[in-house]
Amino acid sequence: MTPPAPKRRVTVNDVAREAGVSPATVSKALNDTGQLRPATRQSVREAAERLGFVLDGVGRSLASGRTYSVAVLTGDAIGRFSIPIMLGAENALAAGKMLVFLCDSRDDPLREQHYLRNLLERRAEGVIVTGRRTEPRAPIDAALPAVYAFAPSADPADCSVIPDDEAGVTLVVDHLVALGRTRVAHITGPASHLSARTRAEWGAARLATHGLEPHGAALFGEWSEAWGRAATEALIGHGPTLPDAIMCGSDQIARGVTERLRERGVRVPADIAVTGYDDWDVMVDGSRPTLTTINPRLGQIGRRAAELLLDKIAGRERPGIERIAPQLVSRASTLGEL
Amino acid sequence: MTPPAPKRRVTVNDVAREAGVSPATVSKALNDTGQLRPATRQSVREAAERLGFVLDGVGRSLASGRTYSVAVLTGDAIGRFSIPIMLGAENALAAGKMLVFLCDSRDDPLREQHYLRNLLERRAEGVIVTGRRTEPRAPIDAALPAVYAFAPSADPADCSVIPDDEAGVTLVVDHLVALGRTRVAHITGPASHLSARTRAEWGAARLATHGLEPHGAALFGEWSEAWGRAATEALIGHGPTLPDAIMCGSDQIARGVTERLRERGVRVPADIAVTGYDDWDVMVDGSRPTLTTINPRLGQIGRRAAELLLDKIAGRERPGIERIAPQLVSRASTLGEL
Repeated sequence: MTPPAPKRRVTVNDVAREAGVSPATVSKALNDTGQLRPATRQSVREAAERLGFVLDGVGRSLASGRTYSVAVLTGDAIGRFSIPIMLGAENALAAGKMLVFLCDSRDDPLREQHYLRNLLERRAEGVIVTGRRTEPRAPIDAALPAVYAFAPSADPADCSVIPDDEAGVTLVVDHLVALGRTRVAHITGPASHLSARTRAEWGAARLATHGLEPHGAALFGEWSEAWGRAATEALIGHGPTLPDAIMCGSDQIARGVTERLRERGVRVPADIAVTGYDDWDVMVDGSRPTLTTINPRLGQIGRRAAELLLDKIAGRERPGIERIAPQLVSRASTLGEL
Repeated sequence: MTPPAPKRRVTVNDVAREAGVSPATVSKALNDTGQLRPATRQSVREAAERLGFVLDGVGRSLASGRTYSVAVLTGDAIGRFSIPIMLGAENALAAGKMLVFLCDSRDDPLREQHYLRNLLERRAEGVIVTGRRTEPRAPIDAALPAVYAFAPSADPADCSVIPDDEAGVTLVVDHLVALGRTRVAHITGPASHLSARTRAEWGAARLATHGLEPHGAALFGEWSEAWGRAATEALIGHGPTLPDAIMCGSDQIARGVTERLRERGVRVPADIAVTGYDDWDVMVDGSRPTLTTINPRLGQIGRRAAELLLDKIAGRERPGIERIAPQLVSRASTLGEL
């Protein structure tokens, strides 16, 4: 087999020769500028296509001032939360002409500054800033249009897109109450996490609107299956009455809860209904029974952040915090096997 | 609070004024060109630093022909395999001056072409191509330096970096044999997957070097916990003798296996040792007992692909397939609780 000849970069001169016109005409035809007969424009385009000529985006950027590149700056690219957000943003931006730089700062402020400087040098048009927790973060230190996703900016003049945890908790409580449950316990992550604290508060507040009180104080611990098992042991070993529902702060916790309940001979959901949070496939499907949970629609958070960033680049500012409505996904852990 | 004044882009002229030199001198000082006294160069740099001036990377690219940007083109960015590879590559490249475009083709050849064309226009210097399966893939259709990661290129003249599955299977078999196990069964994913087929073959071949035969034919199914449970049921329900070890094709399968064994009162590892593959934290840690498994070092695959891409961009070609050695991580499912 003869190896293919190395591909030389096709130039404007090659296209001019192929089309039988001047290089200036090629430039006008491909950039849609100047006065040209449509037939000439067409024949130049066909010649460019035949030769596989690509317009020089770098030179064009210098002329237009646009680079059609933005960045996703993440403190935690490995995380389950950042990835769907990043992909949602990438898909929304790539549908236009934007390409996305992936900048993984690993929560290191020095690395973040290094990236921001690099992005300014390259004239990136904007940045989507994500984090792995919902606590507000300091605004970036760079004169670059930015939209914050998941972790909002601490500056209310910035634009942020975040999951609507209050709506999620409301969906769960209303679902459990609609199924006739009245003794709802709560097992969740560390009290040092904003999302754990606020979900516990909102859960209690929503139960109150139904005339109910939480079944005991919220149990704060870790975002792990092991904590779900341990907290379940504590819950069912004490107290005069058992809960008839356990609302969990994450799917990992909920999986541990269902596992320990099964081992203790407690039927889910006949005796105790269980709910998770996140709609994380391997936890939800691996759990027996499969988990009713909240899908926070992370991809939509990324897509919306991308739209708002494009708006901002175009000069349309929308300061403030926008919340993305989550979805309740009902499965066997509350409905039983169907 | 007074809103901060909008930041105007600092220009070469501003720096020249600040340093009391001509714009041409600023350019020479910051680009390290021309003849200048060191003190002049230094004072220009300090003026640039005070004003927060950033060099214009786009203009410089046009002059140097370099853009210091590469891409990671993934068919499956959401996948557990692509993400660690992508981050390994990104971290290796960012340590230099390279920024990484994230291009998620979602296994769509048209989207892949769209991205490649876009990357050529922007004069990206190269691309790392990843996939979600280890089957060889067609080379990309673009005159762009490329290195393939995880899924190798079908063209042996290309450069590919892949996990060394044969070494991984060898580590597992030798570990089980060293622990005195002689009846090693194998439960794995779909026979249509190259990784499932080759691991089964290599496992049998490695057992043969120890004078052992596999305990029954390999059980092909799905990459899921449910399949691990179902296959375990089949294994322990039939045959005159039980296996004393079950080598699994993935951590998900192994978690299902340990779960069903526990439910059937079979002790792990006292009666049957179990191994996984992938070192996926939530499966390994969630399993009871925790799983002995193979870590394929996906981050290292990404880092090595990045190094080889930088070599290729610099004109140093290293065609062929490079395999990254995996690591055996021993835990309770073979060693018992320590």
